Amino acid sequence: MRARLMEATVELLVERGFAGTTTTLVSERAGVSRGAQLHHFPTKNALVVAAVEHLTERRGEELSRAVDALPAGGNRTRAVVAMLGDHFASPVFAAALELWVAARTDEALLAAVAPLEQRVGREAHRMTAAALGADESRPGVRELVQATLDLVRGLGLASTISDDSTRRRRILGEWADVLDREMARA
Amino acid sequence: MRARLMEATVELLVERGFAGTTTTLVSERAGVSRGAQLHHFPTKNALVVAAVEHLTERRGEELSRAVDALPAGGNRTRAVVAMLGDHFASPVFAAALELWVAARTDEALLAAVAPLEQRVGREAHRMTAAALGADESRPGVRELVQATLDLVRGLGLASTISDDSTRRRRILGEWADVLDREMARA
Repeated sequence: MRARLMEATVELLVERGFAGTTTTLVSERAGVSRGAQLHHFPTKNALVVAAVEHLTERRGEELSRAVDALPAGGNRTRAVVAMLGDHFASPVFAAALELWVAARTDEALLAAVAPLEQRVGREAHRMTAAALGADESRPGVRELVQATLDLVRGLGLASTISDDSTRRRRILGEWADVLDREMARA
Repeated sequence: MRARLMEATVELLVERGFAGTTTTLVSERAGVSRGAQLHHFPTKNALVVAAVEHLTERRGEELSRAVDALPAGGNRTRAVVAMLGDHFASPVFAAALELWVAARTDEALLAAVAPLEQRVGREAHRMTAAALGADESRPGVRELVQATLDLVRGLGLASTISDDSTRRRRILGEWADVLDREMARA
């Protein structure tokens, strides 16, 4: 039941945005009684934060496994960077974006979203550094890994209002080559 | 009067978000009668799109002049990239973000925002390429200019819910050095 509520909440955030996501719509879509829903998540804020956290973790684990399954060498950096780009252009990113933007002007929501954002950010960094085989003890390498994540976040934002996939692929292909040169140099 | 309406609208988008910005609040803050406001901007959508366009252009021109005033050589790339980073972490970016995110789930708003976003994007690209002295006829250079803008957009998004300025400066300092090496290489 919890999983159904989480999926329904994220779907509604993607389709209708934060303002258009109501607890009534979520319980209808999830096929869960209002009473049961309120028992688990007494407020809309509790529900949306839990839902974005749940889906972000699940999709993060999927991404992590996909990256682990990539062959070593060759075009590995290109494949990793392309996978990251697709991940940040996915519906779960749109749902997270709705939550972040709503939290910007809602103190109570921000108090729940800020620590979530920090945890997710740290986990994304750790996973990306490992996937790229980045030696972060070398000067500048940590910043390159962070820049990669900020770049895919910016591309993800661009992709929310238009299909930006061709441009994204071209930019990330170039960036992967730059990363390879820079990491060899560091 | 138009300028006062534009400033008041952007201020309210920054403080209260898209959902919390009402035409009544705007006319109160701008000190403009409801009748006069409705004469110029018959709908909330018309008002917010015009306001974000107006302020984006004004700040873009300010940025452009600041960049033009930079001395050539030395740390010019670092200075340009730092200025871009600050620009995308400013309140006008937060107002534009509110508009983009609202447009994602509002077809009528999207019809007005998508062409605005394209115009602003082209102008930002042209200005950044000129500021960096980027020769976009060389392979990969155009993608690096685009990546620079997507990076500062991603950093701008991160800065909306926490003060990210120290991390931003470190990443953009490294990014500028990468740009210099890559543009020398291209």
